[in-house]
Amino acid sequence: MTAPAGFRATGIAAGIKPSGALDMALVFNEGPDYAAAGVFTRNQVKAAPVLWTRQVLTTGRLRAVVLNSGGANACTGPEGFQDTHATAEAVAQALSDWGTETGPIEVAVCSTGLIGDRLPMDKVLAGVTTLVHELAGGLTGGEEAARAIMTTDTVPKQVALHHPDKWNVGAMAKGAGMLAPSLATMLCVITTDAVADAAALDSALRKATARTFDRLDIDGSCSTNDTVLLLASGASEVRPSQAELDDAVLRVCDDLCAQLQADAEGVTKRITITVKGAPSEDDALTAARIVARDSLVKTALFGSDPNWGRVLAAVGMVPFPIEPDRITVSFNGFPVCVNGAGAPGARDVDLSGADIDVTVDLQLGAGQASIRTTDLSHAYVEENSAYSS
Amino acid sequence: MTAPAGFRATGIAAGIKPSGALDMALVFNEGPDYAAAGVFTRNQVKAAPVLWTRQVLTTGRLRAVVLNSGGANACTGPEGFQDTHATAEAVAQALSDWGTETGPIEVAVCSTGLIGDRLPMDKVLAGVTTLVHELAGGLTGGEEAARAIMTTDTVPKQVALHHPDKWNVGAMAKGAGMLAPSLATMLCVITTDAVADAAALDSALRKATARTFDRLDIDGSCSTNDTVLLLASGASEVRPSQAELDDAVLRVCDDLCAQLQADAEGVTKRITITVKGAPSEDDALTAARIVARDSLVKTALFGSDPNWGRVLAAVGMVPFPIEPDRITVSFNGFPVCVNGAGAPGARDVDLSGADIDVTVDLQLGAGQASIRTTDLSHAYVEENSAYSS
Repeated sequence: MTAPAGFRATGIAAGIKPSGALDMALVFNEGPDYAAAGVFTRNQVKAAPVLWTRQVLTTGRLRAVVLNSGGANACTGPEGFQDTHATAEAVAQALSDWGTETGPIEVAVCSTGLIGDRLPMDKVLAGVTTLVHELAGGLTGGEEAARAIMTTDTVPKQVALHHPDKWNVGAMAKGAGMLAPSLATMLCVITTDAVADAAALDSALRKATARTFDRLDIDGSCSTNDTVLLLASGASEVRPSQAELDDAVLRVCDDLCAQLQADAEGVTKRITITVKGAPSEDDALTAARIVARDSLVKTALFGSDPNWGRVLAAVGMVPFPIEPDRITVSFNGFPVCVNGAGAPGARDVDLSGADIDVTVDLQLGAGQASIRTTDLSHAYVEENSAYSS
Repeated sequence: MTAPAGFRATGIAAGIKPSGALDMALVFNEGPDYAAAGVFTRNQVKAAPVLWTRQVLTTGRLRAVVLNSGGANACTGPEGFQDTHATAEAVAQALSDWGTETGPIEVAVCSTGLIGDRLPMDKVLAGVTTLVHELAGGLTGGEEAARAIMTTDTVPKQVALHHPDKWNVGAMAKGAGMLAPSLATMLCVITTDAVADAAALDSALRKATARTFDRLDIDGSCSTNDTVLLLASGASEVRPSQAELDDAVLRVCDDLCAQLQADAEGVTKRITITVKGAPSEDDALTAARIVARDSLVKTALFGSDPNWGRVLAAVGMVPFPIEPDRITVSFNGFPVCVNGAGAPGARDVDLSGADIDVTVDLQLGAGQASIRTTDLSHAYVEENSAYSS
């Protein structure tokens, strides 16, 4: 995330997490530009930091992003919103004290963790002071920042892309569960030193998330805190074309998606569900999502069981007309179901590896789409039956 | 199921299941009436016996129902349909040989088990002969029939209702997994000795299933084989009013639903999700189903964890507008979330018992509905990761 020129980042342990692990991060844009864009959860129950950051982003401009793990600050009422506001105020004040005149409206806030509890604001505000102090020390701590936003993640997720034309994109993300439909559940900050205005960033970000995070579905649950931010410093003095920017942001988001999938809660299989031959791409996506969210498909694949009948049963619930007798299914390229009935050897397909590709051909049209998901394992149940307690 | 006059039933081990357990059943209506109605899965991928039985029921008349476990005969192509047809033919022939003139179009066929494999027709056809022979012996084997349709069920499900006006309703059902949206995944045969025509039966059955089986959602997966049949012999010579018939069928279905929930795959908690204060009953049902299908809610409840934030996050995904700041949630009657924020003591609610009631009040209108579901446990994962192999 600090690969692009003009960005600093750091992560600290502010004491929000009882474990003493890193739990606060700051990303700072030194400019000369401050253009920014964001996409947010489509959940109607939105955390306070989502409400705040969506509002400040109407200006198309950000100087800093402050993030915390250890608490989502969701379902915390008006007091929770005041906490978010106070955090942005504190960041703006500390940056201004350091000599970088900043208003709270230039500070995005992201939180992740348990829903429903207020944040320990004494620790959060002290953390802000420490963060700005560390940042002022000139250390760039992209790795620490990426670690500081982890919850049930086991590894930090980062990526850097260096364009031949001498501009760069960097990013960090977190997210291991509650990863679902409209925007994979997570926090993600993407930085670039390209010269790009807020509209160009917004366009690139929306196109990229629609094809990447929106197609990652671990457990069908959509969080209250999903936030993806894209900040441009312009420090490279290179203005890429919209197509170049789109491509770079897409590649960065796609790489992060693969990292999120590989570290998802309880994952033992990295599964890609592809539906082709659908009437449209949207139909293909709907069908792939239905298969990807089916508990019986996911448990079968956890057991390396080529139980293709469960895929057919899931496909049968799509909300558009299909012809069951034309459906073909393959596992890892091996046809297990042809024209709606079992193929020879279907029960013997080896699915013991960690990567499973399920391809369904509806043979109705040209629509195609893929969803990344994982299996439903004992570890998933274990992790999620004892999270708040 | 043999509580009503005019019905015989029996169950045998035909050798379809490798374990040697009971796997075929026959229900026979001795008359004098043969009115019948049925409801079927809304899955577009329909098993051969569903296609057959739906067709024969257009006559509004049934003499017999033959059922098997050990194989769903779904996704088996035209050959699978021929197998179903041959089974109905064999039952009709055997009953005719026994002196009860019956045509195949009076015989419903139901199958349950693994999707995708052909049935061993030599065993099925020999089983038909044995079934009719046992039936002719005069033994009424409702219990054996209920056992013969079990798959992952651990107990048979039966119920009998005796109306003060001297008519009766009996029923059996199976179903432990793939229990979901439009009609809980299962086979169910209901019998009555009331005098009622096919239209009256159809009306009573549709109203009852909409409020019972359609509101049981164990794992969100809808099967290819769901079938609920209602047969009336008229042997009591009592013609109940439509309201009386509706009420009796509803009560029988509701009782079976509770039995199915209590024996669902991997169940450790019997959970009822109630949504009230919705704009309409349909909206309430949609919201309750979304909560009931949320893996994070289900794993939390498996862990007896009062993680109400996950309920809010699930509710936030309903497809109609809500006001997050007005939502109230209670667990077993204890308020855990009031006006969208945590209530005092919410994290300390004791959910260690087997029954958990989750009530969400959207405070928007008068719509109310409940969904019965279960938790997502290690046993569910275990059972479903090693079913076909």
